[in-house]
Amino acid sequence: MRAALFAGPRSIQVGERPDPVIATPTDAVVRVVLACVCGSDLWYYRGESPHDLGPIGHEFIGVVEQVGSAVHMIAKGDLVVAPFTFNDGTCPNCRAGWTANCVAGGAFGNRGIDGGQGEVVRVPFADATLVRVPGADHSDETMRSLLTLSDVMCTGHHVAVSAGVRSDSVVAVVGDGAVGLCAVIAACRLGATRVIALSRNPARQKLARSFGATDIIAERGDAAIEAVLQLTGGIGVDAALECVGTGQSMATAFAVARPGAIVGYVGVPHGVEVPIQDLFFRNIVRGGVAPVRKYIPELLDDVLHGRIQPGRVFDFETDLDGIAEAYAAMDERRAVKALIPMPAAA
Amino acid sequence: MRAALFAGPRSIQVGERPDPVIATPTDAVVRVVLACVCGSDLWYYRGESPHDLGPIGHEFIGVVEQVGSAVHMIAKGDLVVAPFTFNDGTCPNCRAGWTANCVAGGAFGNRGIDGGQGEVVRVPFADATLVRVPGADHSDETMRSLLTLSDVMCTGHHVAVSAGVRSDSVVAVVGDGAVGLCAVIAACRLGATRVIALSRNPARQKLARSFGATDIIAERGDAAIEAVLQLTGGIGVDAALECVGTGQSMATAFAVARPGAIVGYVGVPHGVEVPIQDLFFRNIVRGGVAPVRKYIPELLDDVLHGRIQPGRVFDFETDLDGIAEAYAAMDERRAVKALIPMPAAA
Repeated sequence: MRAALFAGPRSIQVGERPDPVIATPTDAVVRVVLACVCGSDLWYYRGESPHDLGPIGHEFIGVVEQVGSAVHMIAKGDLVVAPFTFNDGTCPNCRAGWTANCVAGGAFGNRGIDGGQGEVVRVPFADATLVRVPGADHSDETMRSLLTLSDVMCTGHHVAVSAGVRSDSVVAVVGDGAVGLCAVIAACRLGATRVIALSRNPARQKLARSFGATDIIAERGDAAIEAVLQLTGGIGVDAALECVGTGQSMATAFAVARPGAIVGYVGVPHGVEVPIQDLFFRNIVRGGVAPVRKYIPELLDDVLHGRIQPGRVFDFETDLDGIAEAYAAMDERRAVKALIPMPAAA
Repeated sequence: MRAALFAGPRSIQVGERPDPVIATPTDAVVRVVLACVCGSDLWYYRGESPHDLGPIGHEFIGVVEQVGSAVHMIAKGDLVVAPFTFNDGTCPNCRAGWTANCVAGGAFGNRGIDGGQGEVVRVPFADATLVRVPGADHSDETMRSLLTLSDVMCTGHHVAVSAGVRSDSVVAVVGDGAVGLCAVIAACRLGATRVIALSRNPARQKLARSFGATDIIAERGDAAIEAVLQLTGGIGVDAALECVGTGQSMATAFAVARPGAIVGYVGVPHGVEVPIQDLFFRNIVRGGVAPVRKYIPELLDDVLHGRIQPGRVFDFETDLDGIAEAYAAMDERRAVKALIPMPAAA
């Protein structure tokens, strides 16, 4: 089978990989239908984080081709969503709902594990990991939204849940990438009445508004902080959703949080310094890596009923052969998020 | 009136201060009955944090001597608990329950504001700040427990609340000072079924056990982490309560938290580095300065009914003239917490 392979910073290649097969009775083999590029893929693409050479990509939906003898919840032919990590469903962390921290788990697309940016993936712990999508013949729009449940929409949901967004919350979303845009959806879905999106990109501003943002702040840094404080009577927001992971975005999120607010953060922190004494006196901060597998069922229902359309974050599309260009487009901020439909089985 | 005064690092003196008077109609003048020394007083005592020269002390209970014309909830002769900060009760932060972050508020015992370690205190916003204690002729034991509601017991409660302690939680308490010991009370009060206290001091171990700790870890650093993990099947605790504020204690709290746990922290951070990327992947951290005024009413009822006895943290007692020795005893860890009864009115 063919798959995207990391060959070093700024070098995404497409090559041959062995066809995945059932290795243990709890495995499934899934033929990828839609894959995409994640903002966090850009960290190794840019050489800012280490990553094994080889398979990449951790977001995909696909059709089950084969299941091991111990798999009972998923069958051949099912359309499934894969969370970006696999998990056994039985360890103490899984039972507590922290599926991304499964003691027997791991991530797709690293350390020799098949990536989502390839034609076929072996999925460990298939029953616990995959979520079957009910219904058939879903529209292209729905398929794109289903794909976002593998990471960005669930991560946007996680930042909003972590920050305690509820009915009537006043929320700021720092970051207008796919996760930030999904966080706007999530905040509105949880009942926030005011959602302030920080974005200086007109297309992303428009998408944020269509997802429910009530206010747009085009400034950055101190000017953005000042603008949010002005909108909130000088007090700050009830929940600050940090969706980037840089020092500046984190500092902005910290600064706009009112005392006792929670800063939810889901951007993988890079070069972030935490002013812990300041945070202490203001009682803020909560978040981390999203337990996507826990969230998929709840959000799946909303996608299938069309109540949320996170698939609209995809504004760039290419096939597997063009995947290097997908990375480049996102790296250069020409694209919010790049979609990679895979070829049907030969 | 006489009051303890900060005269520079390791120099606590007792001197004369002007008798406090009603300065604005919302003030009350309170004659202090019991005062005490806080672990956080040791930061400036040791020269590790700046502090204005002059009045000190932020924990006291006392009897109201005089109220301004706009004070209606508190009357002359009332026994009252003062939180360590005063608050107006009407600003957005107060209304949201974050009384220690009142926009018009401040702390007792700094920046020229009368301290609790003196005979008389002017209390701003008396209606919103002070909590009247019902009943009369309380026992010495109850009076000591009432005093802890001005800070340490509410701060112990805050760390447990921040960390989401609930029925059946498995909890670790890092720090065996007065706040850590009160955190043991708080965790048990909130329903924790297993409370692991980290202490290597036999007297504090005994007090922790009598407050409800089920396990004692006498090790420190890596050995303590290893011991907590062994007690919890290698996974860690549901809630880690950090009650010191040093780099080592914070690192211990981070390390023993299971994924998705919350590290509550209420020790004012000093020299703490936050390994944000590690915390990110484990979804932990929450806490800060306690909104004591919000918590007093709830805990007051438990103190008056004898359901909790946080006053047992006081193991050193002296009068105002001996207060310098109280600081020294706590600094040298000869005392958990020092009580300073004040003389009755002349």
